[in-house]
Amino acid sequence: MEAKPKINGGVKDGKQNRSTPAINGPTNPMVTPLLTDLYQFTMAYAYWKAGKHNDRAVFDLYFRRNPFGGEYTVFAGLEECVRFIANFKLSKEEIAFVRECLSPTCEDGFFDYLGGIDCSDVEVYAIAEGSVVFPKVPLMRIEGPVAAVQLLETPFVNLINYASLVTTNAARHRFVAGKSKLLLEFGLRRAQGPDGGIGASRYCYMGGFDATSNCAAGKLFGIPLRGTHSHAFVSSFTGPDEITKKSLKSQDGSRVCKDFVSLTQTWLSKLKRLSLSEGVFGETNQSELAAFVSYALAFPDKFLALVDTYDVMRSGVPNFCAVALALNDMGYKAKGIRLDSGDLAYLSCEARKFFHNVEKEFQVLGFGKTSITASNDLNEETLDALNKQGHEVDSFGIGTYLVTCFAQPALGCVFKLVEINDQPRIKLSEDVSKVSIPCKKRSFRLYGKEGYALVGQRILCRHPFNESKRAYVVPQRVEDLMKCYWPGSAEKKREELPTLEQIRDHCMKQLEHMRTDHMRRLNPTPYKVSVSAKLYEFIHFLWLNEAPVGELQ
Amino acid sequence: MEAKPKINGGVKDGKQNRSTPAINGPTNPMVTPLLTDLYQFTMAYAYWKAGKHNDRAVFDLYFRRNPFGGEYTVFAGLEECVRFIANFKLSKEEIAFVRECLSPTCEDGFFDYLGGIDCSDVEVYAIAEGSVVFPKVPLMRIEGPVAAVQLLETPFVNLINYASLVTTNAARHRFVAGKSKLLLEFGLRRAQGPDGGIGASRYCYMGGFDATSNCAAGKLFGIPLRGTHSHAFVSSFTGPDEITKKSLKSQDGSRVCKDFVSLTQTWLSKLKRLSLSEGVFGETNQSELAAFVSYALAFPDKFLALVDTYDVMRSGVPNFCAVALALNDMGYKAKGIRLDSGDLAYLSCEARKFFHNVEKEFQVLGFGKTSITASNDLNEETLDALNKQGHEVDSFGIGTYLVTCFAQPALGCVFKLVEINDQPRIKLSEDVSKVSIPCKKRSFRLYGKEGYALVGQRILCRHPFNESKRAYVVPQRVEDLMKCYWPGSAEKKREELPTLEQIRDHCMKQLEHMRTDHMRRLNPTPYKVSVSAKLYEFIHFLWLNEAPVGELQ
Repeated sequence: MEAKPKINGGVKDGKQNRSTPAINGPTNPMVTPLLTDLYQFTMAYAYWKAGKHNDRAVFDLYFRRNPFGGEYTVFAGLEECVRFIANFKLSKEEIAFVRECLSPTCEDGFFDYLGGIDCSDVEVYAIAEGSVVFPKVPLMRIEGPVAAVQLLETPFVNLINYASLVTTNAARHRFVAGKSKLLLEFGLRRAQGPDGGIGASRYCYMGGFDATSNCAAGKLFGIPLRGTHSHAFVSSFTGPDEITKKSLKSQDGSRVCKDFVSLTQTWLSKLKRLSLSEGVFGETNQSELAAFVSYALAFPDKFLALVDTYDVMRSGVPNFCAVALALNDMGYKAKGIRLDSGDLAYLSCEARKFFHNVEKEFQVLGFGKTSITASNDLNEETLDALNKQGHEVDSFGIGTYLVTCFAQPALGCVFKLVEINDQPRIKLSEDVSKVSIPCKKRSFRLYGKEGYALVGQRILCRHPFNESKRAYVVPQRVEDLMKCYWPGSAEKKREELPTLEQIRDHCMKQLEHMRTDHMRRLNPTPYKVSVSAKLYEFIHFLWLNEAPVGELQ
Repeated sequence: MEAKPKINGGVKDGKQNRSTPAINGPTNPMVTPLLTDLYQFTMAYAYWKAGKHNDRAVFDLYFRRNPFGGEYTVFAGLEECVRFIANFKLSKEEIAFVRECLSPTCEDGFFDYLGGIDCSDVEVYAIAEGSVVFPKVPLMRIEGPVAAVQLLETPFVNLINYASLVTTNAARHRFVAGKSKLLLEFGLRRAQGPDGGIGASRYCYMGGFDATSNCAAGKLFGIPLRGTHSHAFVSSFTGPDEITKKSLKSQDGSRVCKDFVSLTQTWLSKLKRLSLSEGVFGETNQSELAAFVSYALAFPDKFLALVDTYDVMRSGVPNFCAVALALNDMGYKAKGIRLDSGDLAYLSCEARKFFHNVEKEFQVLGFGKTSITASNDLNEETLDALNKQGHEVDSFGIGTYLVTCFAQPALGCVFKLVEINDQPRIKLSEDVSKVSIPCKKRSFRLYGKEGYALVGQRILCRHPFNESKRAYVVPQRVEDLMKCYWPGSAEKKREELPTLEQIRDHCMKQLEHMRTDHMRRLNPTPYKVSVSAKLYEFIHFLWLNEAPVGELQ
C-alpha cells in the first residue's frame, strides 16, 4: 500500500453517472438503510448539528487476521454492497422510526436531510469479488460525506464479513478435498437463519463447491442442485408389499418389466449367494428395499440410495446393488450410494470392494466405479483424516461445519476512518494490531518470476508497525488492486458486476496462483503485506502526534 | 415421554378452522417453500409415484445434545414456523423451477399435485416458544400427509436451530453477567448475514438481553435500541476550533451558555490540577475533546462517550469528565462512558475511582455512579473472568461471540419420522445416541416439591437406551408440554401466538425456575429426561425387529 496522490479526493458537482443500467436491490429485501446500528444515526445527527455532515471522509474496510488459522482469505459480498448503495434511500416510515429512536430535542431539519440522502455523492473502490486477500489491505475504500458513509458501515461490514468467511471456508475445504472430488453444500438446515443458508450456498459455490441442496439458492443464483432422499423416506416404507405399481419401462423404451420388485428380489438372492461366501449379510431390511425400489421406479436414471438407515454392509449396500442390477437389466445405470454415519473410510472401502465383486461376478462393466458420496459432519479435519486413512469416496456432502464456519464463525472486518477533508486520520490502540493505517491509499499486488503473487522496479517494502521488518523487492509485474465499483459524482467508469460464474472462475484462478505453502492447513507461511517507505514514515509521524504524552512521577 | 393414545391420529375431512385471524408470512420474505433441500422434492415425487404421498406421517423435531457444553436449551423460532405453514403455497414460477430440477421423465400430475399442497391437513404441536427444553424431547410434533410434511423439514429445522441456539446463548450470557447488569446486543456487523443479525437481535432479547443496536430489529420487533458513537466519530474531528455552533441552552430552558467549548476547557483545566496531583494525565487529545463536545451539544441529555480512541485514562476519561461537568453546570446529567479495548476490569475500576474523585472534589452528587459500559469481544468466559477479577462495569455490549454463537455455532435439531399410517417407525444407527424414539408421543414435565422442574403418582421413568438407568418418581405437579399451534383439519383450538414480550417473560420465568446446578457454566448437572416403562419396552422390541441379523462364520 502507498499513500495515494490526491487527484480524485475533492467533492465534485453533479450526480452520479446515470447512463449505466439500473442495479437491482439487495438479494434479501430486509437489507434496508435501517439494517444498521443506531449509533450511525445518532452520529449522523451529531455531524449534522455540528455542520460537519458533508465533510469528505475516506473509510477503509479491512480485516486484521485471516480466519481459520490460515494465511489467506477470499473477498466476497461486494455485489450485495453495490446493490445496497445503488438503491439507498430512507422511506418516510423509516425516517419516522429514526425520529422516534433519537431524542425529542432533535431538530426537524435533520430528518429532511436524512430523507435526501442517497449515494450519488459516495465513491466505492474495491478489490474484485472472489480475489484472494490479506490482512490490513483495504478490501474496499468508501469516500463521501461523512454522515452518509457512516450509515453504510454496518450493512457493508455485515454483507462482507460472512460472505468472505464462508467463501474462504469453502476454498479451504476444496483445498483439502482435492480437485477431483465433487463437493456438495448441504448446510441449509443448520445455517444461522434463512439467508445464512442462502448466502452459504452462493458463497460456497463461489469458493469452489460444485452444487448445493438449497432450492432457493439454486433458483436465485443458478447454482446446480443435488439431492435424492433421506432416512425418513427409507423408514416410511414397511415392506415391498406396499408397492402396487411395479412396472418399469426400459431405458430405450423397447421393453417393460412388469414386476420390478420381483426382479430386484431375484438379484438380492443372487447377491446373497455371492456374499454368503464372504459372510457379509443375511436378511436385508425389507422396508429399506421397498424404499429403494420405489425411488428407482420414480427416478430410474438417477438412482442414488442412502444406505445407512439400518446397517450399511448388512442391508443398505446389498439392497442398493440388487436394485442397481435390476435397473441395469433395464438399461439404466445406477448413480451410487450415500453414507451418512459410521466409519466413512472403512465403509467406503468395503462398499467399493463389494461393487468390484459385483462387477466381476455378474460382468457388469463399470459397476466397481459406482459413485460413493459421504456426508456425516464433515469438515477440513475429517477430510484430511479420511485422506490419510485412505477412502473410496467420490463426493462429499458438507453442511454444518461449512456453512456455520464452525472452526471460526466470525470474520472481524472493520470500517475505519483514514482521512477527512484531506487530513489523514489514525485510530490508536493499546493493541498495536488495532492501530489503523491512515491516508487514502492505493494497493498493489507484486508478482515474482514464477507468476506467484508477491512489484521490475526495486521497491522498499516495510511492515507497517515493525521497524525491523523490511525488504527490497523487484517485482516482475504489479497489479493495481482497487477498481471503481460506484463512482458517485466522480467522472469515472463503473466496473460492471460480474456474474456468479465469472466471480467463481476468478476465485479459482486466484487460488491456483497461490503458493501452496500459504495455503496448507497446518502452519502456513504468512503472505507478506507491506507499506511503502513513505507511508511507513507518515504513520509513525501521525502516531506520535496523536498519542497523549503521560507524565511520570 | 410416553406413547400417545391414537385419538387424533386419523385423517379428518374438511379444511382447517379458518375462523382464527390470518397469520402474517415469515419475517424474512425469502422464507418460501423453495427454501428447502432438493431431496424433499425428489422424495415428494417418489412418494407420489408410489401412491404414498398422503400416508399420514408423524415427525418429531428435537435435538440430541445441549449446546455450549451446557445442560439446557431455550426453544425458539416457533412463531416463524407457524407463519411459514400458515402461508405455505408454491407459486407457478416455483413449480416450474422444481420441474426443471427434477427429471424430464417426471409426470405432469405430480406438478398439479404440488401446486395444490397447502398445510390445511397438517397438524403442528409444540412446546411454548421461550421454554427451557432438553435433549431427545420433541420440541415439535408435525402430523400430516408424508410428502407435504417432508417439504417442511428443512425450513422448520433452519428456523428453529439458530433461533434456539442464540436464545440459549443469550440466556447463558445473562446467567453469567447477573440480573443487575444491562445487556446490550451489538452483533449486527459480525452476524452471519443480514437476517443472522436481525434474528440475533430478536432472540437475544428473548433470551434476556435488554436492548440492541440493530435499528431494523428495533422497528420489526419493538426491541429497545441503544447506541451513541464510534471511534470514527472521534477521529473525524481535528480539534475544538472546528466547532462553530458553541451555544447550549440549559436543561430547564432558563439559561444559555454561549460558549460551551470554553466551559468544557475550563473544567478540563480544573480536572488537570486535580489529577496532576495523582499523576494521571497531561494534555488530553483535543480532537477527542471536540468530538465529545459536539456529541454533547447534539444530545445534551444523552451524553455517553466512547473513551478509548487515544488513551482511556490519559485522555478519554478526563475529556469525558470535562464535558460531563460542563453539562452538569447546565442542568444535564451525563450518561456515562464506553470502554472498547484494553483491560476492562482495570480500566473500569480506574474510571470509577476517577468519577468518585470528581464527585468528592467538585461536589457533584452521584457523579461517582456514572455508568460504565464495556464492549470488547466479550463472551461468557470473559464475563466470568471480569466477575472474578472485580470490575465496575454496569452494562455490557456483546457482539461477535453472542450472535455467531462462537463457542458452538450450530445446534443439531433433526426431524425424524416416528410413525406412519399408525405404524411406529424407528431409525437405527451404529451410534446409539442417533437412534430415534418411535411413536407419536406425549411429553410431560414433572415438578418436585421445591417447584423445580423435575411428575403425586409413582411413575417409573427409564432412560430410553440405558437399561440400568431408571427411577420411581412421585411428582407434585405434571405439566403437559405440547400444545396445538396449527390444528390443520383436526377439530382443535389453535394456540394464539404470544408477543415477543410475552415469550421473553415466559423464558425469564422458566429460567428462574431452573435449579442453578443445571445452569452453571462448568460441569453442570444433567437434567434427566426419561421415557415411560411402556415406551421403553416398545423401543427395544422395535429395535430388535428392524435391525438386520448378521451371520458370523
